[in-house]
Amino acid sequence: MTRPCAVRRLDAADPAFSSDLDHLLSWESVSDEGVNQRVLEIIAAVRQRGDAALVEFTQRFDGLEVGSMADLILPRQRLEQALDRITPAQRTALETAAARVRSYHEKQRQDSWQYTEADGTVLGQKVTPLDRAGLYVPGGKASYPSSVLMNAIPAKVAGVPEVVMVVPTPRGELNELVLAAAAIAGVDRVFTIGGAQAVAALAYGTESVPPVDKIVGPGNIYVATAKRHVFGKVGIDMIAGPSEILVVCDGQTDPDWIAMDLFSQAEHDEDAQSILVSPDAAFLDRVAASIERLLPTLEREAIARTSLEGRGALIKVADMAQAIEVANRIAPEHLELSVADPEQWLPQIRHAGAIFMGRYTAEALGDYCAGPNHVLPTSGTARFSSPLGVYDFQKRSSIIHCSADGASELGKVASVLARGESLTAHARSAEYRIKG
Amino acid sequence: MTRPCAVRRLDAADPAFSSDLDHLLSWESVSDEGVNQRVLEIIAAVRQRGDAALVEFTQRFDGLEVGSMADLILPRQRLEQALDRITPAQRTALETAAARVRSYHEKQRQDSWQYTEADGTVLGQKVTPLDRAGLYVPGGKASYPSSVLMNAIPAKVAGVPEVVMVVPTPRGELNELVLAAAAIAGVDRVFTIGGAQAVAALAYGTESVPPVDKIVGPGNIYVATAKRHVFGKVGIDMIAGPSEILVVCDGQTDPDWIAMDLFSQAEHDEDAQSILVSPDAAFLDRVAASIERLLPTLEREAIARTSLEGRGALIKVADMAQAIEVANRIAPEHLELSVADPEQWLPQIRHAGAIFMGRYTAEALGDYCAGPNHVLPTSGTARFSSPLGVYDFQKRSSIIHCSADGASELGKVASVLARGESLTAHARSAEYRIKG
Repeated sequence: MTRPCAVRRLDAADPAFSSDLDHLLSWESVSDEGVNQRVLEIIAAVRQRGDAALVEFTQRFDGLEVGSMADLILPRQRLEQALDRITPAQRTALETAAARVRSYHEKQRQDSWQYTEADGTVLGQKVTPLDRAGLYVPGGKASYPSSVLMNAIPAKVAGVPEVVMVVPTPRGELNELVLAAAAIAGVDRVFTIGGAQAVAALAYGTESVPPVDKIVGPGNIYVATAKRHVFGKVGIDMIAGPSEILVVCDGQTDPDWIAMDLFSQAEHDEDAQSILVSPDAAFLDRVAASIERLLPTLEREAIARTSLEGRGALIKVADMAQAIEVANRIAPEHLELSVADPEQWLPQIRHAGAIFMGRYTAEALGDYCAGPNHVLPTSGTARFSSPLGVYDFQKRSSIIHCSADGASELGKVASVLARGESLTAHARSAEYRIKG
Repeated sequence: MTRPCAVRRLDAADPAFSSDLDHLLSWESVSDEGVNQRVLEIIAAVRQRGDAALVEFTQRFDGLEVGSMADLILPRQRLEQALDRITPAQRTALETAAARVRSYHEKQRQDSWQYTEADGTVLGQKVTPLDRAGLYVPGGKASYPSSVLMNAIPAKVAGVPEVVMVVPTPRGELNELVLAAAAIAGVDRVFTIGGAQAVAALAYGTESVPPVDKIVGPGNIYVATAKRHVFGKVGIDMIAGPSEILVVCDGQTDPDWIAMDLFSQAEHDEDAQSILVSPDAAFLDRVAASIERLLPTLEREAIARTSLEGRGALIKVADMAQAIEVANRIAPEHLELSVADPEQWLPQIRHAGAIFMGRYTAEALGDYCAGPNHVLPTSGTARFSSPLGVYDFQKRSSIIHCSADGASELGKVASVLARGESLTAHARSAEYRIKG
């Protein structure tokens, strides 16, 4: 006897829909003062005592017998070894995925540009890669080789000379797929450290760990809290909320496919969010039936059930136009347009991390190997932010090269504006360049 | 009798140079627990009581008699009025600056792209503007019309339909130049509110203030702290540290020009940082003499003196190559290459917010009207971040549209990788799309 799965049903025609939707989407990460305090202590210890602190924390938190920092450095050769320890099918799959991710991301690379004005003044934008990037990879259960590809490849495509990976190995467990992915992605150095101590080491450097310019990659609450604290000293990617999918379906896709697409999000963790929107009420019933039937067949049934019952929803809308309105309102991390002619609706989609078009494009294809990045803005932040990309590992410098004539003309304008702001040294600096 | 200005002298040949430089550059903004607590209370009040809280805080903090929220809305017509109240020279200068800033930023606009693979699968990147941006403009002394242009124009060039500006008017003071700049930049709505309450209103919305997607613009410690707290709910620009300039000079520029360029940074505030690097020791002496002579002639002498004595430095290097090394180490907000052939050194500059090339390109020209943005990464963050730009008001969505054949092939790869990660619902969702 399996208990029925009680997925919430909403109808956009309901007067309470707007507030129901707000409630469904509401998510604020709770900042725990205890975690915060411990993280601050760990960061301070690593800044003060460097490698010695890393060794101590790794012994304590990862249950590892570590003699010295040398035991926490994984040579490149060990990564190559992993390529031989995984199955040939796994190696081929990783290599295929990596090649596709690389090829897509190469289109994101930005080049420097400049132009010359009539008086000889040159203006431009110089684009350069970061000197060094840090990649956090979780250990244990949530250790995903696909994340290694998705985080390291954009950095290498950007031209970052050195990508430094940290990955904890609780009780000595090494994940061969993760190491193989690091080898394929071109990771330059690996340290088997994790937690807030690894983030602190990447941000400030120790005797052995070189300081990086930006830290990317997922992690638990200690890692996320540490990233928030070192932000400013180094760059960080977004602090991710729970993963989510919004499927918009016209009612013509196999309901089993849609149910499994929803599960693929719900199986991540209990807080993950899977929402289906359709103008076809009968179709929502058919998907609900598929959910009932298929849920007990999942390896991660308990997690998916909790996620679907706690944060999932099947939403009835009047028509496709209203479905798109709901999508823009949610600004989902993943948006599946499982409809006959997705191109028709694309121009109206304003906010989404990634858009999966048509019935064949399951989110899972994008998670692993389609090419675009799977690190995407969550919790509605697609309203103002973007997938992880090559642009996260490049930065820009403005170039201004005034000719004598150009400086003379601009000096007059700058002088008026600077005096209007009572910044007279600015004005006089500009005025020196005005021709007499 | 004026007291001599004691600007620190460093020599890169000194064994202690590296640690001296670290000390000179060290800057950590102190987070005051009292400020933090007050800001959290203000945010909570605005979220709970909306307009009523805004009216109360504005009465209390800005010393304004405010009857209702209607008194805190500045109609577009009032902005147009400001255009007539400033001098014709000021209006022309603002319009010239705006046109140049617009023209430069138009080159930063990014377009959507997509490509089709052999099996018909389409991959791409859709670029869209934010729906609504918020611009914070400080009131009183530090109210800069140039900042209005630099923050609002990139948003409008990006295609943001609605730019909402907030500016406090302590004791009712309106800055006509700021309002005129807002009119010229195309700001859509203006509210005369400021402080943490204005940031909270922009982030969460009230009955009158529409919620925005990103908040940009400078502000005091309350504004900066509030921006940190609402980050995640909305996007924010960088939290800026004190402004800085690094001048690299070959010793052939008029020392008075260089002194004034250093002053133009030092006059901003006591924490601003002005550093000169040169391989010519005698030139450093000449600049020191110019500083002595010119400092007493500055309107903002006291501020500039404190800044130069506390955080300024004249650094002797062995040669230009070492000067460039120091520049990359500092990763300055503003870098002036006041040398004969700046193009020669440009390829070696890896980190700088903006690069001012040659003897004619005073930083002040870039601050006001050259075209590139004057909102730049400070405190060494040019190692990983960029000037404010059009890209800050655009975001990207990945597009994946698999053909039936493409989904079948990708499904096989995704299946292997998903099973390697024990995410079997992901695997099954992909496998549904494999052709039988």
